[in-house]
Amino acid sequence: MDPKDYRFSTQISHLALDIGGTLIKLVYFSPNGDNCEDGSIVVGNGCSVVQGRLCFAKFETRKIDDCLEFIRFNILQHSGVQHPNGTAGDKISVKATGGGAFKFAELFKEKLGIVFDKEDEMHSLVSGVNFLLKTVPREAFTYLDGQKEFVQIDHNDLYPYLLVNIGSGVSMIKVDGDGKYERISGTSLGGGTFLGLGKLLTKCKSFDELLELSHLGNNRVIDMLVGDIYGGTDYSKIGLSSTAIASSFGKAISDGKELEDYQPEDVARSLLRMISNNIGQIAYLNALRFGLKRIFFGGFFIRGLEYTMDTISVAVHFWSRGEAKAMFLRHEGFLGALGAFTSYKDKSHGNDLKPHHHAVQRAVLNCSGDDNCRHIPITANLSDGEAIECSINLV
Amino acid sequence: MDPKDYRFSTQISHLALDIGGTLIKLVYFSPNGDNCEDGSIVVGNGCSVVQGRLCFAKFETRKIDDCLEFIRFNILQHSGVQHPNGTAGDKISVKATGGGAFKFAELFKEKLGIVFDKEDEMHSLVSGVNFLLKTVPREAFTYLDGQKEFVQIDHNDLYPYLLVNIGSGVSMIKVDGDGKYERISGTSLGGGTFLGLGKLLTKCKSFDELLELSHLGNNRVIDMLVGDIYGGTDYSKIGLSSTAIASSFGKAISDGKELEDYQPEDVARSLLRMISNNIGQIAYLNALRFGLKRIFFGGFFIRGLEYTMDTISVAVHFWSRGEAKAMFLRHEGFLGALGAFTSYKDKSHGNDLKPHHHAVQRAVLNCSGDDNCRHIPITANLSDGEAIECSINLV
Repeated sequence: MDPKDYRFSTQISHLALDIGGTLIKLVYFSPNGDNCEDGSIVVGNGCSVVQGRLCFAKFETRKIDDCLEFIRFNILQHSGVQHPNGTAGDKISVKATGGGAFKFAELFKEKLGIVFDKEDEMHSLVSGVNFLLKTVPREAFTYLDGQKEFVQIDHNDLYPYLLVNIGSGVSMIKVDGDGKYERISGTSLGGGTFLGLGKLLTKCKSFDELLELSHLGNNRVIDMLVGDIYGGTDYSKIGLSSTAIASSFGKAISDGKELEDYQPEDVARSLLRMISNNIGQIAYLNALRFGLKRIFFGGFFIRGLEYTMDTISVAVHFWSRGEAKAMFLRHEGFLGALGAFTSYKDKSHGNDLKPHHHAVQRAVLNCSGDDNCRHIPITANLSDGEAIECSINLV
Repeated sequence: MDPKDYRFSTQISHLALDIGGTLIKLVYFSPNGDNCEDGSIVVGNGCSVVQGRLCFAKFETRKIDDCLEFIRFNILQHSGVQHPNGTAGDKISVKATGGGAFKFAELFKEKLGIVFDKEDEMHSLVSGVNFLLKTVPREAFTYLDGQKEFVQIDHNDLYPYLLVNIGSGVSMIKVDGDGKYERISGTSLGGGTFLGLGKLLTKCKSFDELLELSHLGNNRVIDMLVGDIYGGTDYSKIGLSSTAIASSFGKAISDGKELEDYQPEDVARSLLRMISNNIGQIAYLNALRFGLKRIFFGGFFIRGLEYTMDTISVAVHFWSRGEAKAMFLRHEGFLGALGAFTSYKDKSHGNDLKPHHHAVQRAVLNCSGDDNCRHIPITANLSDGEAIECSINLV
């Protein structure tokens, strides 16, 4: 892709990255108007409030060069920052999380002059979810039987909850409050497994292509159902209906067929069902251990896909006998990046930060209970992609 | 295979079947000597004790004709029973369990004149395990760090335990005593998934071939490790080492490689690791729910394969922090069939059974506390395959 395609009409400032094994997620602030100062309101204690939007972008980690170009053209050049490129110059500090914040630190320094201010991955995830649940209306919803229902979260009754982040792998985190959390479990069967196995089995090139394919498929072609083993009848004594999946991909053992004999869409469907169901089950079992009634599912695996959400919801509902509830988040894919973005705030009153010489300044999202700055409500406007209207405080 | 290849030198009598989605398992009694009466000892109450061996055989369910021929040539013909084949005649009643006892009931009746006396699948599994643990010495063992260690089970301290039966799918059963059990969980990622996906990915034709292949492979070629995401470092804060699998098959997303570019043995290895680890994790989480310290793994998936047992053991050890123990059974593959076999006993004193006109008579394994028949200790002799030396009581 030509880097120029990434150019935005408005200036971008304030950036945070979450670099995972499969995807790089970016959250950045785009002020209303032509430059950072327009639309800003100076409030008490020298805070300057800038109106704008939180915007989101993602890149495949294997195409990290596209991400570098995006940042170079849309953030650094717009901000008038030139990469010293061999000459001495100040490094730019940017919040980054995910394993890639370690793995690609040298690359960003070398190519863009950006130094990562690393935020812990789990901490960022939790911060991102808490930020969303507390400040963005109509963020969380349930999905069951084709019905999407937004859930109003009572801030006083938010904790504890289980956060299931489905990235390449899956992390399960028990959240007890702001900054109070523990990674209690996980599974290696995640989005990377779906895409990895999916690519090997269907020759799909991308996650989106694979998801689209799965839409069209029928998992019963390859999955072995209880009825397939029991000659069409239920195994009612233990509550297994004839249509329950006894063995994922189990029919492939007996058909004498080869991979080419199956429709790729059926394979994709079985794969999606297998992984979604497994995550739902392990999530429920972990929620049960700690008596957690609410399970929030995030990460780039779900992508608002109804079949995935339905499978996860049914798994949680089935195994918990209706006791636990699966909930989804509209900004599910950007939890870590959002958390890293909000972490600019955390250190804004510390003494360890030197002033930055560029547009990526210390930002304070006005979602905090900071008495020094007047709150301006954040309203979500998702008709325009995933962007969140907000304002940030420049301190 | 020519059915005659199945001929045994000794006579076979007393048969039970467990017909699953992938495999048919047979347990039958083979008396010492040339006919059923030789070696028999008449004990009190008209019981006739016959010395012999419990033997085991398995067939792929998709090759059910081989199984039919085996029974016809080795059991029916040896017993002098001729299939009426159109003429009126008594049906032969045989204990059978598993979904195939329903699905293939008509086929067995039509082809062999055998009527299935159906035993519940879960009940049979539990009976089979209890029989083994109580009567066969050196049946259960742990496997960790390459060390196999036989476990002496104290009969008074056997219950409760978790039984994880890995067939095409996986059933998890909490066992509280003889006939006291509950299926508390399961997963569709089982042996059928391993073989089904394995066949699609490697073109292996059989389970054994796939297992052998997995011996030679390296899962790190395709699995995305924590170190792959974190640039070679651990994520030590949450206890994830750099060599932990972050995402099964996760590397296949980014390599730009196609299926043909991978070695089948590496694919098989990753698959085996993924499924074994997942089963170990879900088993542990279920054991935790009910405070079960011992988890017995059975079913035809394991087959004594060290890598599989090691993966399951490590998963249970890792997730339970050493609290729970994975145990394996030498006759893991024949639990349901053994349970069905022992169930002949259950009805031997009832009035609802009519005399049979053939060698498949009502058998009483002399492992019970039946006061009418003197006990003859069962000694296991596994140097001769999986056979168990024993005697049965003909009543």
